[in-house]
Amino acid sequence: MFEAKIRADILKEMVNVVTTLVDEIKLNISGDGIQMKAVDPAHVAMVDMTLKASAFKELKADKCEIGVDIDKLKEVLKLAKPDLMITIQHDEDKNNLILTMDNITRRMSLVDTTGMSDPKVPNLNLPAKVTLNVDELSQGIRASESISDHITLIASPDYFELMSEGETDSVNLKVPKKSLKSLEVTEASKSLFSLDYFSNIVKAIGAGRDVNINLGTNYPVKIEFAIAEGEGHVVFLLAPRIENE
Amino acid sequence: MFEAKIRADILKEMVNVVTTLVDEIKLNISGDGIQMKAVDPAHVAMVDMTLKASAFKELKADKCEIGVDIDKLKEVLKLAKPDLMITIQHDEDKNNLILTMDNITRRMSLVDTTGMSDPKVPNLNLPAKVTLNVDELSQGIRASESISDHITLIASPDYFELMSEGETDSVNLKVPKKSLKSLEVTEASKSLFSLDYFSNIVKAIGAGRDVNINLGTNYPVKIEFAIAEGEGHVVFLLAPRIENE
Amino acid sequence: MFEAKIRADILKEMVNVVTTLVDEIKLNISGDGIQMKAVDPAHVAMVDMTLKASAFKELKADKCEIGVDIDKLKEVLKLAKPDLMITIQHDEDKNNLILTMDNITRRMSLVDTTGMSDPKVPNLNLPAKVTLNVDELSQGIRASESISDHITLIASPDYFELMSEGETDSVNLKVPKKSLKSLEVTEASKSLFSLDYFSNIVKAIGAGRDVNINLGTNYPVKIEFAIAEGEGHVVFLLAPRIENE
Repeated sequence: MFEAKIRADILKEMVNVVTTLVDEIKLNISGDGIQMKAVDPAHVAMVDMTLKASAFKELKADKCEIGVDIDKLKEVLKLAKPDLMITIQHDEDKNNLILTMDNITRRMSLVDTTGMSDPKVPNLNLPAKVTLNVDELSQGIRASESISDHITLIASPDYFELMSEGETDSVNLKVPKKSLKSLEVTEASKSLFSLDYFSNIVKAIGAGRDVNINLGTNYPVKIEFAIAEGEGHVVFLLAPRIENE
Repeated sequence: MFEAKIRADILKEMVNVVTTLVDEIKLNISGDGIQMKAVDPAHVAMVDMTLKASAFKELKADKCEIGVDIDKLKEVLKLAKPDLMITIQHDEDKNNLILTMDNITRRMSLVDTTGMSDPKVPNLNLPAKVTLNVDELSQGIRASESISDHITLIASPDYFELMSEGETDSVNLKVPKKSLKSLEVTEASKSLFSLDYFSNIVKAIGAGRDVNINLGTNYPVKIEFAIAEGEGHVVFLLAPRIENE
Repeated sequence: MFEAKIRADILKEMVNVVTTLVDEIKLNISGDGIQMKAVDPAHVAMVDMTLKASAFKELKADKCEIGVDIDKLKEVLKLAKPDLMITIQHDEDKNNLILTMDNITRRMSLVDTTGMSDPKVPNLNLPAKVTLNVDELSQGIRASESISDHITLIASPDYFELMSEGETDSVNLKVPKKSLKSLEVTEASKSLFSLDYFSNIVKAIGAGRDVNINLGTNYPVKIEFAIAEGEGHVVFLLAPRIENE
């Protein structure tokens, strides 16, 4: 059994996060909330998202798993104003999900979860932790787009830097410690990432929000942020590229 | 002889209506106003529009017919602010239409009306009459777009419903009687239509306006609305699709 | 040596002007300001732009020439708010240009200026001079777009006119003397131009600005306007098309 009421904008935040990496997602549902984990098809990035029961207006659920086609959720959300309340019901007989809002009832078939793995989120101990406004990251990404397909993240005790180098041109965005929300660096760290993946992850974070970046040297980066007004939590892991590939 | 002055936004409404079905239109002009009828090339839909003399700032006309290329009218209207006054003159010697607004004079060749038929609008007696805000129809159409190429309209004594069914998914927008402007159903009615045609017709109706839907079972739907601040009237007829085609 | 500080919106105006005709531009730099001249690859139009030292917040420069890829400047300007101050430095050792703004440092390779000519701007004595708001030109261009690939400019003692004629259709925008800022015509003048070139030049002029048109009969048109709040000056020359080509 799964029945929930949730505000359209919170469901939209959730959908924006998972659509970054996958087209279909397995929701692990219980009375405590919803959890979902996914790895992109190329195994470069991973997401682990939790939405607490308190993120919902109402949540009645037995422990269950359902597989959802994310594009179908997006279509429904296009019809909804941000503060609209959406009712979600699992019709177990037909294996359908029924979404209701205003006068609209949308019945969608579910996706088979048999082949969907439960990726294990590795436990990383990363020596640099940065908290900053996501808009700084967005600006650095935009500056890098014309330079290279890669972006280097650098954390030192005094600053956090995004750098992109092409054959003849380069760009740096260097944020000094005083412009960061926090900066704890036990070891200066530097890793190279796919600009495309990094950009898509950053787009999933609402403008103006704070984000935690956990960085090492030639290690995956861990990108953490809150959703659902603090009642949800997202962790992205993105694998590094080797510098001279 | 045909000379008229009309506000750009009223001419725009007229153009939006006819462009739904055809590229060229025959205007039947007299001192009482302008009337135009058209059938789309596939003979699925028909429009019958009347613009009273009172819709014009000025209208001096002998009874005549002129054929107009609608794209040319659209181009001129792109240059005009909504409340701009446009002067239209028929130059019979050159068989041109001359549109004047502000400092701009646009001279356009007319289209030969010889081959253009005067479609007869059938007299339908339909058992269900619904009046509602067009925004409800727009919302129902948007909800249906990802589901199917067809949309079913349903009128019962208690509600009006738009429904779209795909192989695995479906969507309903059910408007209860209390949310309708009026509902008179002598016989519960249900017909299936091409979503594309229905959507294009609904787009020709200005947002927020009231529209009358006259429905039967497996019968054409009649869609009526006012234009030109009530000084003009539009009737669309759209043929049904057979349920299991 | 070349070091400058300039507001992003002023640099943007400069870039908008030169991008009309060329992809790369040679800047002739001195302590008095920057001058640049360019001819489009088809030799139909020419631009001559001057930016005085007073257009810069700071300018320190020895006489030098540098070649710039305009697309790279555009990319940087996309990152900047209009009132942002941009620092520009020439790194002579690496033959790079370094642009700094906020936390961003963008290093770009320069273009070889060896092959870039210094076009000579011909001295034209044109018998008609018109000053008008550029929005009138924009409106005339928009009206002409659907009619022809050419546009005729006409200046008489009483009015300035833009005209476009197709096989069956035509459009005129006739601005009477009283709606012009000034009109001095010693000889009625009329020349035909490529609509595409004329349109691109007019787009380089900020909306609402005044522009001087100097016209003859079957002569190039000279289009002059101010940039950088009057601290810069632009002259475009556009060659005429022969009427019955």
